[in-house]
Order: sequence, then C-alpha cells, then structure tokens
Amino acid sequence: MNDQTPPARSARPTRSGGRAARHALRAAPLTEDKRPVRPGMEGGLYQPLSQADMDRIYETALTALEEIGLVDAPESGIAAMTGAGAILGDDGRLRFPRGLVQSMQAIAAKEITLCGRDPRFDMHLAGTKVHYGTAGAAVHMVDVDGRNYRDSTVQDLHDAAKIVQTLDNLHFLQRPMVARDITDNRLLDLNTIYACCAGTTKHVGVSFTEPGFVKDALEMLHMMAGGEGAWRARPFVSNSNCFVVPPMKFATESCQVMEECIAGGMPVLLLSAGQAGATAPAPIAGAIVQAVAECLAGLVYVNSISPGYPAIFGTWPFVSDLRTGAMSGGSGEQALLTAGCAQMHRYLGLPGGAAAGIADAKLPDMQAGWEQMCSNVMAGLSGLNMVYEAAGMHASLLGFCHESLILGDDLIGQALRCVRGIEVTEETLGLATMHEVCVGGPGHYLGSDQTLGLMQTEYIYPALADRTSPKEWVENDRPDLIANAVAKKEAILSAPSQVAFPADVDQAIRERFDIRLPTV
Amino acid sequence: MNDQTPPARSARPTRSGGRAARHALRAAPLTEDKRPVRPGMEGGLYQPLSQADMDRIYETALTALEEIGLVDAPESGIAAMTGAGAILGDDGRLRFPRGLVQSMQAIAAKEITLCGRDPRFDMHLAGTKVHYGTAGAAVHMVDVDGRNYRDSTVQDLHDAAKIVQTLDNLHFLQRPMVARDITDNRLLDLNTIYACCAGTTKHVGVSFTEPGFVKDALEMLHMMAGGEGAWRARPFVSNSNCFVVPPMKFATESCQVMEECIAGGMPVLLLSAGQAGATAPAPIAGAIVQAVAECLAGLVYVNSISPGYPAIFGTWPFVSDLRTGAMSGGSGEQALLTAGCAQMHRYLGLPGGAAAGIADAKLPDMQAGWEQMCSNVMAGLSGLNMVYEAAGMHASLLGFCHESLILGDDLIGQALRCVRGIEVTEETLGLATMHEVCVGGPGHYLGSDQTLGLMQTEYIYPALADRTSPKEWVENDRPDLIANAVAKKEAILSAPSQVAFPADVDQAIRERFDIRLPTV
Repeated sequence: MNDQTPPARSARPTRSGGRAARHALRAAPLTEDKRPVRPGMEGGLYQPLSQADMDRIYETALTALEEIGLVDAPESGIAAMTGAGAILGDDGRLRFPRGLVQSMQAIAAKEITLCGRDPRFDMHLAGTKVHYGTAGAAVHMVDVDGRNYRDSTVQDLHDAAKIVQTLDNLHFLQRPMVARDITDNRLLDLNTIYACCAGTTKHVGVSFTEPGFVKDALEMLHMMAGGEGAWRARPFVSNSNCFVVPPMKFATESCQVMEECIAGGMPVLLLSAGQAGATAPAPIAGAIVQAVAECLAGLVYVNSISPGYPAIFGTWPFVSDLRTGAMSGGSGEQALLTAGCAQMHRYLGLPGGAAAGIADAKLPDMQAGWEQMCSNVMAGLSGLNMVYEAAGMHASLLGFCHESLILGDDLIGQALRCVRGIEVTEETLGLATMHEVCVGGPGHYLGSDQTLGLMQTEYIYPALADRTSPKEWVENDRPDLIANAVAKKEAILSAPSQVAFPADVDQAIRERFDIRLPTV
Repeated sequence: MNDQTPPARSARPTRSGGRAARHALRAAPLTEDKRPVRPGMEGGLYQPLSQADMDRIYETALTALEEIGLVDAPESGIAAMTGAGAILGDDGRLRFPRGLVQSMQAIAAKEITLCGRDPRFDMHLAGTKVHYGTAGAAVHMVDVDGRNYRDSTVQDLHDAAKIVQTLDNLHFLQRPMVARDITDNRLLDLNTIYACCAGTTKHVGVSFTEPGFVKDALEMLHMMAGGEGAWRARPFVSNSNCFVVPPMKFATESCQVMEECIAGGMPVLLLSAGQAGATAPAPIAGAIVQAVAECLAGLVYVNSISPGYPAIFGTWPFVSDLRTGAMSGGSGEQALLTAGCAQMHRYLGLPGGAAAGIADAKLPDMQAGWEQMCSNVMAGLSGLNMVYEAAGMHASLLGFCHESLILGDDLIGQALRCVRGIEVTEETLGLATMHEVCVGGPGHYLGSDQTLGLMQTEYIYPALADRTSPKEWVENDRPDLIANAVAKKEAILSAPSQVAFPADVDQAIRERFDIRLPTV
C-alpha cells in the first residue's frame, strides 16, 4: 500500500455487472415520494441558541414592546390594537403589555398553507419544515457575459418566474426584482403580479406601493382564480409587507396595505428588515431581539383585526459591514442571524421566514458560491420554514442573476440533502451487508443490492455541477459552469410556457388592465 | 414608505462622525485575544445524530469488530493486539471482544496537543475545538489562468506551505499534494517533509511509503528540532497513516510505518478512508459504522503498543457518486458523513478528524465555493477537531489550487465566524441601547458606542471577497476574484521566507540528504 496515492480513488473496483444495473436504474424516473429531497423536509438539528438564550431573547423582546413600543401606526391600526389592550402613550408610542402579546400569540395561526396556483406546489408551513424560494427588490440584472449590471425589467421578472417553474428546489417565487421599465407605481404593482403568475404556478409573493392599489390587484387575482370565491379558497399570492421601519416604528402606509390584504384574503408576510449596526443593534442577539419584538407587534396588529389570520413571522434582520455601514448579506454573521431567527420561530411556535442565500459577490463566482451556501444550508439545518432570497441574489440584494438562479437549484438541492440528514435504521447501519461483503464476499460494496437500491433515493445528483475527473473534463473540452447555465437559461426561456393563463382569461385581464408583458 | 425599495439599504443613515470613528478603529491592529475568530473555537451546536442514533452506530461498530474483525495485520501488530486480548481466527481475521475495545478506549489519549515548529501555532485537540487545514494526495496542480491540470511538484508543495504560513484561518499543513517530480519514494518522503517544514512553522502532517523510510525522516526532524530530545518534547510533524484498506482490512505496510512512527515519537492520524458505495456501505449511517469500527481497531492497535499514545481518530469516509462509482467529495452526503463522524468523536470522547472542504469542481468557480463551504461549515458547526482537506482541493481530491487555498482563508474565516455562534449576554441583548436609540435618540445604531465596540471583535471581514456596491465595483474596474487571488499568491511567493531554517541547520540537512528544493 502506498500512502501517497489518493486513498479514496485507489480502491475503486470496476464491475460491468454493477455498472449495467446502475445504468438501467438511472434511466428510470423517480416518483415524487422517492425523490431524495422534497419541499417541506424537516430541519432543526442545528440549534445556535440554548433554551436559556431563547428565554432571554423572548423576555427582552417583551420588555422592549412594553417599555419602548412602536410609533407611527395608522389610525385604523391604533384603534384595533388599543381595542385589544395596547396602550398609546403621550409620546405617540404604542406599547404592548406582555399579557396582550401572549394572548395574541395564543390565537395566532400556528400552521399556514401557502397555495400554489397548481395545488402540487402548496407549501405547509409548520414545525421545522423547510422551503426555499426567491425574494427581494433588486434593481439590477446581472449580465454575466458582459460582466455588467443593468436595470431590471418586467420581462426579466417574468423570465425569473418561468425559470423558477422548472427548478425542483425552488419552492416559491417571491418577487425578486423591481420592473424598472414601469415607472407608474400602480402599473408596476399590477404588472408585477401578472409577470410572476404568468410564469409560474408556484406560490407568488408581492408587495404594494400604496394601499389604494390592492383593490385592483385583487380584481386581477379573482380573474386568474376564476372568481373571488376560488381566490379566497386558495389564495396563491401573498403580500410581502414591510410593516415596520426599524427600529421600532410602524411603516404607516405599509400597515394600511396590510389591512387591505387581510380584507382581501391575501396571506401576509410580516417583514421586519432591520440592518444590524444601522437600523438594528449591532450584536447578533440584539438584532434578533428587535426583529422578534417588531414581528410580535405585527402579530398583535394582524390578530387584533382578524384572529388567526395567516401571517408569516418574518424576522429578516440583515448585517452591516461595520467598517462601511454597507449591507453584507453574504456574511457568516448573516447566516447566524437567520438561523437564530429560525430557532426563535420554533420557540414561539409560529410559522416563520427569514433571508438567506444572499451573495455580496457581484457575479456568480466562487465567492457567490460560498456565500449562498453558508446561509442557505444553515437556514435549512435550523429548520426555517421559508428561506427567502435563497437564489439569484447578488451585490447584497441589489442585483438579480438568472444564471445564478439556475445554479441555485443545484446549490439548494445539496442544502436540502443536508437538511434530510442521516437516517439510522437497522438497514442503513448495514451490519448484514458488511458481513456479506467482508467475509467471503467481493470485498467491496459496488454491486450490492443495498448500493443499487439507495442510488436514487439516498443520493442527490446536481444538474450542472461537474463531477468528472480531470481527464474526462479535458475530453469534454473543459465545460464552463456559467456557460452551461447560460445555455440552460436560453433553453428554458425559448420553450413555450406550460403555465400560461387560458386565452380567454388572459384576454380579459389584458382588456381590463394595462399589461406590459407581450403576449407569448 | 415604498415597499418596492430594498428595505435594508433604504434606511442607511450617513453620519460622518460615526464614519470617522470607524476609520480610526479600523486602522488599529487587533490583539490575538480580540480577534473575532481563532483556532480551536468550540463547535457542536449542529448535531445530525440523536443519542439513540449514536448508541446504535457504536454498538454496531463493536459488533462488527467482534464478529467480522480485520485481516492483514503485520505479525508485530498481531502479537501486540492478541497480547492485549484480540482473537486471531482460523480465517486469518483478527477479532476484538467489546471489552477489549472499551478498555483501550479508556486508556486512549483524550486530549492531544499537535505542536507547531512555532509554539504560537500549537493546536489543542479536545472536546469540540475546531481547527482547519490542508491534507490530501493530489497529483495535479490547477493552473487557473490556463484552465489546465498539470503534475504537481515539490516546489508547488513548498509554495503551498509558504502560503499557509500567511493565512490566519489555515491552522495546519498536512501534505496536500504529491511531488511528482521526485520518483524515488525515499527521496519523495524526505523532500515532502523538507518542503513543508521549510515553508511553514505550523503543524505539518505527512505520510511514508515504506516503514524503512521513517528512520531517515526522524533524523532530519531531529536536525530541524535541534536534537532528538527537542523533537520528542514538541513533535511538529505527525504521520497521516492509512492503516486500513476498507472494508475491514489492515494495510500491512502502513501499519509497520505506524509502529515506526510511534517508536519515534511522531503523533499518528489513524486514517480510515472508505468510500461509501464502493469500499464502505452506501448508506451514510453504515459508512460511519465502518469508519468507527476501523478506527477503533486502530485505537486498539496503537494503545496495545503504547498506552495513551497520541492518535487522532481519523474517520474519513468519502462519498461515491453512485451513478458512476466516482468520488464526490463536494456533495451534501459528504458533509453529512463528516458531521456525523465529528459527533461520534465526541460520543467516544476522542480527538478526531475528518475530511471537508473538498470541491468536485475543477476550477475555483461558483460550484467550488458552494461545495467547499457546505462541508466546511457543517464540519465546524458539528465540532470537528481537525478539518482536513479544508482548502485548495479540487476535482474530488485529484487537483490542488493555490488560488483556491488563498480564497479558502476567507471561506474558512466565515465558517469559523459561524462556529463562534451567537453570544447572548445582557450587553448583546442590547435593551439599554435600543432604549437610547429609539426613545429620543438618533433612531439608528450607526454611531452608538456598542456598534463601534463590536466592529472588530464581533464581525469578521474577508480579505479578497468583494462587498462593494455595483457602482463602486464598476468604479473599481470590476475586480475579478481569481485575478486578485493570483496577485496575492504572487506577492506571498515573491516575498522572502520568514520561517526558513537557520543557515547552518539547512546546510547540514542538505549535506546529509538529497534535498531537491532549491536554496532560497
């Protein structure tokens, strides 16, 4: 034995029998229940906070709500919350006795189903079930060929939706970028919904610029759903709502948007997006405290209007690079913030979401890969229900990249494999197989029934990531990861849409609304 | 409030006072104890296995040792182990009663200090303390400019050592590649030690092709140390020893190497490098069982020769891509295997190591980034004492890349930040600061004393990863990550060595041995 040779490769037997069997198996498609990873797998084995830590964070958040409170709620919100027991101070701050917060926690929705337009894509938010998807408000598209940033458009947004529709490991599409070619805000909001929903039948998340725009949007959604009843039965769009301007201020107009959405039956994401060291405390623990406090205020708000209404606990604290004050979504501190928030959601027993997968890198390079994986895998392992911004996000949220989104499917598939974890059973412990192989057997496991049986159900294989040997890689003409992602993007976008609205529905929507996306 | 704008950036106040203070702080160097990350930080908050899972894995490993055992120990090893209570069967297999294994566990070293040639770099292996370093036996160097793989040389090896010496987050240098320009195995082994130790004063790991080569190596190490006594007091080189050929066979010659190393006072890494689905069971649990069983056999071996001798529990199961039988070190399955092994080390109370940070990607691209981060961060969070192969490794261990090694310092720094975790204290919970900021205060945290105080101790900043805005990035002429790594490599390698041997020592070594590395 020569210790200098790579040990793992040196002992690779070749057995054409095993290889033929593997080839046959590989050709067979997997049924949904046999796939190695799925939406809603259970995480939670990574626990960055101790029980005592969580107790202290929660208690501090309750104290902050009781003593500091929030300003700037709209009149309607003040009425609802003071009616429930909140106290409006002479200083204009609305304070929340802990008994009020805890009684609202008790009646809040503990499980939420976010519907897809296609029920196959429904997501059940509960416990430590993990789902990954896009989100954000990038203002640029990353042009990988030209190494350039340009303004994002409604066509880019639709393309992102069309791509997400084809990617197994992207479970929802929250609007990741702003259609900057539409400058009228009402048109922007309506076209955003149209561009997203025309591209995917997965669940969609959007926001609204003004409360007055919600009514039109609901009318459009009723048309897509086949009537208000059908919409209310299965709302396939939720409202991503920045209801607070951290620290500890309600965002007055966004709160009014939220009230409109609740009236219209649209689930709400209560999004608190402080930035540690800028609009939130610099210590990770303190940023979590403030996010939890703000979202608890949001929870009181929602449940004082509509008890048990579906509201996702959206603690999204971000990280500052404290040297410059600029955001750093790709940092380890961000991954810890998000994982800590996920654990607080479980502590509170509330379905929650946070941001992960953000790259600070401007391009889909090695930095982007490590930044996106770090927070995505930690978010999954911590059992975050909704991992927002999980793919495609660059430049600390300012740029969106279709190629990166496509590669994100491989990256998130791997993270999901990690979330699935290690199954320990009589069979996987494998003593019987070890006995057969070692004592009088072939001395390796390549052709064993167990190996073949697990090939597709226990292991996941990337679509674009390259696992060839250097020799094969040279023979394949040194394939380039990004060039392959570009080619896949072009194939997806040039294929006819599988999920377009029926022609009469589309025509009716286009007659009623100024839809800027060309008919496909 | 317009929900369409990126919330995190929209609320960034600028305060030249805070900025000036940050600039002043940034200029001040950090003392060692204030650095946000350090070698030996404690992990362990990610626990992929339950207590019952670990009990079953351990019990199955004990049963495998009792019932299956291992073949091919050298006569000397058979004598030592049967002397201690192992049973040699008529089938040539050496079997280990569980009482024997457990009594050897009881006397085995529970803490190990791996020395650097410079004591600043000593590593204390115990509990969940985490250290990252290189390892492997790559046969190629990755040429990033030419997108090419070429044979690795002794100069490449020395360059890697010189680079590792400069990188804070690489804590040791185990020989990562084979000097293929040296075809004589005795010369290869001696020159490997020289090339590594001449480049770094961090702890070095090497292997030996034949037991007969150890004596010369020790003579050289005595010369470097200043005599045998000084060497034995602080051995700064350990033996990475593939003492088994999985499944369940001793590697006869490597075992003889191990015996020589033990006699010479060189710490041993008991390295079991099975490949799940090929030389180890395909299920992750089964691969861990076999690795634990094999390393326990190694532990019996070492402790039957020299009770309490420093031996690292090196469960290094790798992963096959079961479609092809090829190795996939960059997979999620690999990250799980490694993290599960780390947990078993803690369960057994033994200092341990495993492989992480391997990329299947041929180049330092986005795939490499996500692959390297996935297993590195999970290894750290699981509290692995020695994370081997953590940087620079491509093509599933076949290629080593200096630029990737340099970028790995940023990547591992981020992983270490995650290992450090979330500190929850009265101060970090930050209620007092929140009060000051929100009620009558500035409404943001940018200039607060707390923010400035934490800037360097709570947050880590990458050296090469880019966090600029798209605007700054364009103004900086779109810096390329790899080009910057190349430039840093050239700067490191062109600088004079800070750690070369004293001239007389170097001359004596060169007179006694055929050293192929040119004098610098």
